[in-house]
Amino acid sequence: MSETVLDMASASLKATDFDLAVWSRARQLRVEQALSDWVAPDAPAGLGDAMRYAVLDGGKRLRPLLVLAASEAVGGSTSVVSFNEAALRAACAVELIHAYSLVHDDMPCMDNDVLRRGKPTVHVRFGEARALLAGDALQALAFELLTPDEATVPPTVQAQLCRLLALAAGSGGMAGGQAIDLASVGVKLNESQLREMHRLKTGALLQGSVMMGAACGAPSAQALAALSAYGAAIGLAFQVVDDILDVTADSATLGKTAGKDADQDKPTYVSLLGLARSQAYAQELLVQANEALQASGLHDTRALRALADMVVNRVN
Amino acid sequence: MSETVLDMASASLKATDFDLAVWSRARQLRVEQALSDWVAPDAPAGLGDAMRYAVLDGGKRLRPLLVLAASEAVGGSTSVVSFNEAALRAACAVELIHAYSLVHDDMPCMDNDVLRRGKPTVHVRFGEARALLAGDALQALAFELLTPDEATVPPTVQAQLCRLLALAAGSGGMAGGQAIDLASVGVKLNESQLREMHRLKTGALLQGSVMMGAACGAPSAQALAALSAYGAAIGLAFQVVDDILDVTADSATLGKTAGKDADQDKPTYVSLLGLARSQAYAQELLVQANEALQASGLHDTRALRALADMVVNRVN
Repeated sequence: MSETVLDMASASLKATDFDLAVWSRARQLRVEQALSDWVAPDAPAGLGDAMRYAVLDGGKRLRPLLVLAASEAVGGSTSVVSFNEAALRAACAVELIHAYSLVHDDMPCMDNDVLRRGKPTVHVRFGEARALLAGDALQALAFELLTPDEATVPPTVQAQLCRLLALAAGSGGMAGGQAIDLASVGVKLNESQLREMHRLKTGALLQGSVMMGAACGAPSAQALAALSAYGAAIGLAFQVVDDILDVTADSATLGKTAGKDADQDKPTYVSLLGLARSQAYAQELLVQANEALQASGLHDTRALRALADMVVNRVN
Repeated sequence: MSETVLDMASASLKATDFDLAVWSRARQLRVEQALSDWVAPDAPAGLGDAMRYAVLDGGKRLRPLLVLAASEAVGGSTSVVSFNEAALRAACAVELIHAYSLVHDDMPCMDNDVLRRGKPTVHVRFGEARALLAGDALQALAFELLTPDEATVPPTVQAQLCRLLALAAGSGGMAGGQAIDLASVGVKLNESQLREMHRLKTGALLQGSVMMGAACGAPSAQALAALSAYGAAIGLAFQVVDDILDVTADSATLGKTAGKDADQDKPTYVSLLGLARSQAYAQELLVQANEALQASGLHDTRALRALADMVVNRVN
């Protein structure tokens, strides 16, 4: 195909032509099926039950969708039947890390939450010890999924996916952000400290999802830099919106306890900037994410744009 | 070198020529230095302190020594100055998994231990929440160490090391064994159930250490099978000896509370086989380990033989 034809094809791929719900549904089903196949069917002594309870049939699967959208944008297959194996594994691995972090976060020594998505949390249902082990085993399984002993995923891609996920999950990513969060209760953070906390706690894994998707294809340096900027913007936006919803939504809509951050005297964007400026900031981050995509040189970024829009304009 | 000369060289490498203490000391120092460099110097909010406290200056470093001994046996460098980078990273990664498992194991919802190697356990020193996060971050760091963004370790080796470690640590390995252990308190296990529990709980990571060391070289299929059998034998022997020491040693020698398993009504080899038969079984496993090495076709297995001997004949 000549460049002109590609440009024309690209120009015709307007966001308005794109139905995120349809795009997402097919991919969510594929991820759900893969998770059901892969999450520890043979784990002993009730451990598998706890792991599956923590992972299956829950959540919007935002992180897997980001992996798949980025993978497709950089040239992975867009067809659900011929799913890129690396991208599917990366999508599931990221979700396992997210799921394990929720299991451990909910434990009594952390947030002490008894409900998650309307169901008893894992430690309430299976006991604290098994919840601890289930979280630990889910993290290991994430890396196991990324390293199949087959030729389906090139070893260079396997190694890069492991590196990206380890960096996003560890002390320089999610776990580090949680540690800052722990240390911040009742402490006055300024905006840059708050941003740093959220960049690690929530942003690293969201951005990591985008970068893992990109690693499943062969993006240009320009595309990679753009996707990194996109990931950073939506990662931060996700948390700003979380803080907004904590004060504007009710518990039933949220599926978790509203007003909890304020009750626990946790620093939030709303407590720091106020509600109106927080809302404006979220929209500004959405603009940044879309500008990054425009500068990416990628031809079809509709799914990524629609996901950014969903992150910022969601109601729960 | 002709085969005859190699055979002669091999025959001259008797265990009696080999000083395990000297061999170990150089490698322990190198591992200690690497861990000190790599364990999260920049982690935020006290998280790095907890991670370093959990890892540095502790233990015999048996797992790293197994990685290095296996790596050297299959043709990695035996010289400390030109350490095989992959093997050093694998040695440290295995130790991080071991260290994180101890941190989580010691927590109140698991074994509720307040002392480890004569020091307050991580949750006693840093609080439960930070102990939980430190363990989580140590597991992520293990995979980060295995996937350096450099040409120092070939991507095929990186991917294989991640796979071996994930399998050894997860629900089909260490975490699975801990789940069986949890479910076994006060339950009568037969010998095959007890062996399965320990094969996973302790054995998988010890055997995994050997296999990760082997993955840093290019072993023959014969050597790989032999090393796998060696790893399985010492993995099991380690636990049999642990059970023996729990009743024969005092707490001061052990560095942990003696007699604890019996007090908690946990199934052990001693409770199942009696002391004398347990001791005979440990010696039988040592014979099996050495026979595997003899069948390996490898020329210098002195370090592996000496480590097996240490595992079985240790006093703490």
